[in-house]
Amino acid sequence: MSLDPGAAADLGTVRIVGTGLLGTSVGLGLSGMGVRVLLHDPSPTALALARDVGAGEPDPGDVPVDLVVVGAPPDVTAAVVAAELAAHPEAVVTDVASVKGAIAVAMKDVLGADRYVGGHPMAGRERSGPTAARADLFLGRPWVVCGTDRQRCEPVRMLALALGAAPVFMPASEHDEAVALISHVPQLAASLVAGRLVKAADPAVGLAGQGLRDVTRIADSDPMLWAQILSANAAPVTGVLKDLRTDLDGLITALDALAADPGRGGRAAIAQVIHNGREGRERIPGKHGEPPTRYAVVTALLPDQPGQLARLFDDIGEAGINVEEFSLEHAPGARVGLGSVSVLPAVRDELERALTERGWHVVA
Amino acid sequence: MSLDPGAAADLGTVRIVGTGLLGTSVGLGLSGMGVRVLLHDPSPTALALARDVGAGEPDPGDVPVDLVVVGAPPDVTAAVVAAELAAHPEAVVTDVASVKGAIAVAMKDVLGADRYVGGHPMAGRERSGPTAARADLFLGRPWVVCGTDRQRCEPVRMLALALGAAPVFMPASEHDEAVALISHVPQLAASLVAGRLVKAADPAVGLAGQGLRDVTRIADSDPMLWAQILSANAAPVTGVLKDLRTDLDGLITALDALAADPGRGGRAAIAQVIHNGREGRERIPGKHGEPPTRYAVVTALLPDQPGQLARLFDDIGEAGINVEEFSLEHAPGARVGLGSVSVLPAVRDELERALTERGWHVVA
Repeated sequence: MSLDPGAAADLGTVRIVGTGLLGTSVGLGLSGMGVRVLLHDPSPTALALARDVGAGEPDPGDVPVDLVVVGAPPDVTAAVVAAELAAHPEAVVTDVASVKGAIAVAMKDVLGADRYVGGHPMAGRERSGPTAARADLFLGRPWVVCGTDRQRCEPVRMLALALGAAPVFMPASEHDEAVALISHVPQLAASLVAGRLVKAADPAVGLAGQGLRDVTRIADSDPMLWAQILSANAAPVTGVLKDLRTDLDGLITALDALAADPGRGGRAAIAQVIHNGREGRERIPGKHGEPPTRYAVVTALLPDQPGQLARLFDDIGEAGINVEEFSLEHAPGARVGLGSVSVLPAVRDELERALTERGWHVVA
Repeated sequence: MSLDPGAAADLGTVRIVGTGLLGTSVGLGLSGMGVRVLLHDPSPTALALARDVGAGEPDPGDVPVDLVVVGAPPDVTAAVVAAELAAHPEAVVTDVASVKGAIAVAMKDVLGADRYVGGHPMAGRERSGPTAARADLFLGRPWVVCGTDRQRCEPVRMLALALGAAPVFMPASEHDEAVALISHVPQLAASLVAGRLVKAADPAVGLAGQGLRDVTRIADSDPMLWAQILSANAAPVTGVLKDLRTDLDGLITALDALAADPGRGGRAAIAQVIHNGREGRERIPGKHGEPPTRYAVVTALLPDQPGQLARLFDDIGEAGINVEEFSLEHAPGARVGLGSVSVLPAVRDELERALTERGWHVVA
């Protein structure tokens, strides 16, 4: 996947309303491919910054536009879209908000709503604002396009392709249920598990390992942004949370019975929860969006000094082995790192041999 | 942290009962430091394998032993410990099971129970059995020691130190509550979230990103082993799960109110859940068991070819920058990888400049 100037050439003049991370990134990508991009933001500072990083020119207000991209905060997106539809009666208007149903509902009585096509590029960063923008932010990411009229959707599809994203057509309701399941509820689960640590004793959190770190990584999120996203998608999120609560209730019942009488049954219900998790986990697409492959993992001890990772990957490269995934972990209390190299199962033994021969301490 | 032959020299003769992954790893580590290790396993094959990999000699049965390490499956550990206490009236007996309270309770009417000291090395691998054993499996890991009599605990503390682990003293009940919170409930949360994907539509799981992958990584676990662990720790796990259900109920109530009437309040309750998660997440110890540091992350595009990681780390090493964490991610649908390099915030800009100068495409 790469930026596609051919697709960009068909877009005409593009107006971007809201020069935050996403709007400015769209502007950077398109301007770099020669598209005329007109910028607008209620904040003169944000607008000037977006112009200065090269995302486009401030909209002079008298140029006809073909496509409007609304990158406003989630809670004002619908109002901004309606205003843009009225102000640009020939343009297709799209947005990048992460919840789509509420906006579609708000469009019902809006004049020109047939020119609105909802969009959601599945991309983001830890940093926000125009200075964090990147022309390549959308490279290889899914870009959901909500619309049934293929002709109306075409400019949004071309926008996604121009920016190197993969357009995915989906009705707004289906999108919102999908993100509730694969993004919003996992976020809440991570936050709830991490939230239980707030009042935990120091020695208890001192035993934490990589598993807890992984489960709670995304708990490190912005409360205000998530309150906006979750409240805009309240019904689908609640639906998934209630299913989750049913599963949780079943688990608590089984464990309660076991706690009261360890001789009784209940183990099967517990094993089933773990089994289902394993089956669900296997459905998550792996590398390159292809079906997940089970990689074999070889872990080497890494002295905590500069240059060790370079030496490790030199040695792996010399052995002609392709690394599928890699993670660097530090054992609690240890002055060494553990580098876990994931490779295709067929080359696992070869990798272990190659590393051992080259003096690496392979531990797993 | 490293293996400590000085500590090993004080252990005397060590008998290991159960030559699975943990028992054989203990044997390998101790034998390598000159400790006399006597092995026993009900399976002649497992015993022979442990001997062949160098974990020790089969116990001839007539040698006095100073320390017995029980590495039996969780559901038979208490019975094996009791039998060992009776058979070796002079020895201290310890075990490596991951739940400690049930065994302590079972010891109540056992003769010689004052010579039992519970242990839990916080180490493991994806593979099991004697052939997966490693002398360095425990390097840098916490090794929980459950006992109040420091003199009785001393051989177990020395065992942990000999194997390069960090001994942590903790009562059995406190240990079980700690692992419920930091290991067992996160496991169940990951399994429950992943379990919801089993019946999800293909297009929905197709939108999954790195967040979902992280939250559910440990859902890829062994159902039978976890049924044993969780049922042995049913009461503490249920306690944490019920707290979690209370939090979940509050969240569902707030979202239900918002779904019914978006104009109403409820956003504050949602923001609070995210906020608490962030606060809890900050309590998890980081690298080397020190307080967590916020690292700065620089992400580079990596063409999917052998040798690219080596080149990347060569370039980072040449710039004299120490990598704190690293992760390799593949965007769905993309034929490129994203390498995220975590460094101390002070050298972030220097790293970005160094990589850009050397021709890397830095994206975040």
